[in-house]
Amino acid sequence: MSEELRAAVAWTGDAVEIIDQTRLPAEEVVLRLETPEEVVDAIRRLAVRGAPAIGICGALGVVLAADQLGRTASADDLTQAAGAIRAARPTAVNLAWAVDRVLAAGPDRTALEAAAIAILDEDREACRLIGEHGRAELPHARRLLTLCNTGRLATGGWGTALGVVYAKAAAGEPVEVLACETRPLLQGARLTAWELQHAGIPVTVLTEGAAAARLQQGDVDAVIVGADRVAANGDTANKIGTYALAIAAHHHGVPFYVAVPRSTLDPTTPDGGAIEIEQRAGAEVRAAAGLPEEVPVWNPAFDVTPAALVTAIVCDAGVLRPPFDVSIADALGVTSPA
Amino acid sequence: MSEELRAAVAWTGDAVEIIDQTRLPAEEVVLRLETPEEVVDAIRRLAVRGAPAIGICGALGVVLAADQLGRTASADDLTQAAGAIRAARPTAVNLAWAVDRVLAAGPDRTALEAAAIAILDEDREACRLIGEHGRAELPHARRLLTLCNTGRLATGGWGTALGVVYAKAAAGEPVEVLACETRPLLQGARLTAWELQHAGIPVTVLTEGAAAARLQQGDVDAVIVGADRVAANGDTANKIGTYALAIAAHHHGVPFYVAVPRSTLDPTTPDGGAIEIEQRAGAEVRAAAGLPEEVPVWNPAFDVTPAALVTAIVCDAGVLRPPFDVSIADALGVTSPA
Repeated sequence: MSEELRAAVAWTGDAVEIIDQTRLPAEEVVLRLETPEEVVDAIRRLAVRGAPAIGICGALGVVLAADQLGRTASADDLTQAAGAIRAARPTAVNLAWAVDRVLAAGPDRTALEAAAIAILDEDREACRLIGEHGRAELPHARRLLTLCNTGRLATGGWGTALGVVYAKAAAGEPVEVLACETRPLLQGARLTAWELQHAGIPVTVLTEGAAAARLQQGDVDAVIVGADRVAANGDTANKIGTYALAIAAHHHGVPFYVAVPRSTLDPTTPDGGAIEIEQRAGAEVRAAAGLPEEVPVWNPAFDVTPAALVTAIVCDAGVLRPPFDVSIADALGVTSPA
Repeated sequence: MSEELRAAVAWTGDAVEIIDQTRLPAEEVVLRLETPEEVVDAIRRLAVRGAPAIGICGALGVVLAADQLGRTASADDLTQAAGAIRAARPTAVNLAWAVDRVLAAGPDRTALEAAAIAILDEDREACRLIGEHGRAELPHARRLLTLCNTGRLATGGWGTALGVVYAKAAAGEPVEVLACETRPLLQGARLTAWELQHAGIPVTVLTEGAAAARLQQGDVDAVIVGADRVAANGDTANKIGTYALAIAAHHHGVPFYVAVPRSTLDPTTPDGGAIEIEQRAGAEVRAAAGLPEEVPVWNPAFDVTPAALVTAIVCDAGVLRPPFDVSIADALGVTSPA
């Protein structure tokens, strides 16, 4: 990698600093978030996105909430303030998980901060392990197709799905990425292409519509994506467009991998049907075409890929294989369903 | 339909008038094309698009070429001038078919013009018949999912796939359209949504990435698209993204229809592997994300859906069913392969 990127989320002791991802690739602007309200706003408008990154940001936001409330605040006050952060976006489980974990460490400010920083540090290490496990799983996969952004901008480390790419590149293995542009907000074109160009890793952008035709060509070795929530049975919520890639990969006999830290595995959600899918404003879609407001738009931010279409889940605990209800429970050290 | 739209392509006797489809939906600008060079340019930059519409435009362009060459021109001169029109875009067979048919009527100017106008008139009638056959085939299909634009803007009449929608609406049948926005040039969002809104037919725009998730919901009755070329075996070249829809429709057991005039059926192309797929400039994709020129882009304008994924082909001759090599040959009155 030719250049060191700034971390997507950094903690200064009294503020969260993020790269404003809505401004990339045109400008690299660092935003300083000093209040929980600013954290919520940044998460909602996708200035910071990526399930692990918003988890970290939310965790640090709880510390800012404690600072804002001051020493006299009760645990209830903090829980209430944290609730707004927890609810900023519904689909990625990492956000609720991180907020709850930090709250559980409180109410002492030092303990809250330590818990939040631990989440950041653990995510960095999880990314490293995902990269290594993925590299071991895919030694001959040179051309990987992905969607959205799952790299340094989406996590506390070098990424989940892109973490595998970075691990391969760091080991001197040949690797190149086909990055779906990821409508409507173009995280693949804006963020993934930008990240990989900076890292000196070959990347080609294509539209989601072109991905199946590319799989048809026969030169894609694997599809690998991140996730916002993996249910106990392996059903996977991820950026809208993922399910189409999974179907097309299956149709062409190309393996389909999901790469996540364990914080994205949600044993309390039994299956995909129980995952809340965030619906976003139609304006996100209308803008590109200059459509008037009266044209209805269906704009879910995520879709659910059934576990049956997932070849394996690459996580920091290793490579999880079907039956996922068992392998996920094992990875989390929880009791597997009967 | 609440409002009559101007025809996509009209003939004034000495010029071709088109609605500049690059300016929609913001502005409805009529372009007057007076030379074959202007026709080629309009086709290349997609000011006029849609396989039937560029066929009509190309046919009328041959008349303009004859006018430009004058009375002393030889048949060879005209064939050469027409060759540039014929080659303006490679994938849609209608363009080459229409140019060749007009040339065959020459060199008399009156005969050329009559042949070109006949193509326009026949396409209008073909659209009407496609609509009627499609309506009879899909009496209970209320919610149709489509890609790109296949309506009044794409043909000499009310459209191919959208012709079925208009026919249902005209007959008072309930019908609504899920229109994929169609990256990179957004013909679905810009043109299909605009057309259907004007016609008072309910339309909802979604990204290509969201189409599979919508099929998963179970409320789509059929996918119906147009085509730029259907090979002798039924393999179908159409707007990039079509193949992904066909795979997803198949995965969900939703019927997948192709609607075309017979001029789009190409008995001289044995299968999809023989169809030239136009590659377009990466800038079309880069623009939305503000990507620098050095980021590589894979931007095919079309993909090929294997015949095995096509439920039926709705054409002006009726509904063609597998085996398509036989039904297509029958529809064209040519000898079927052994």
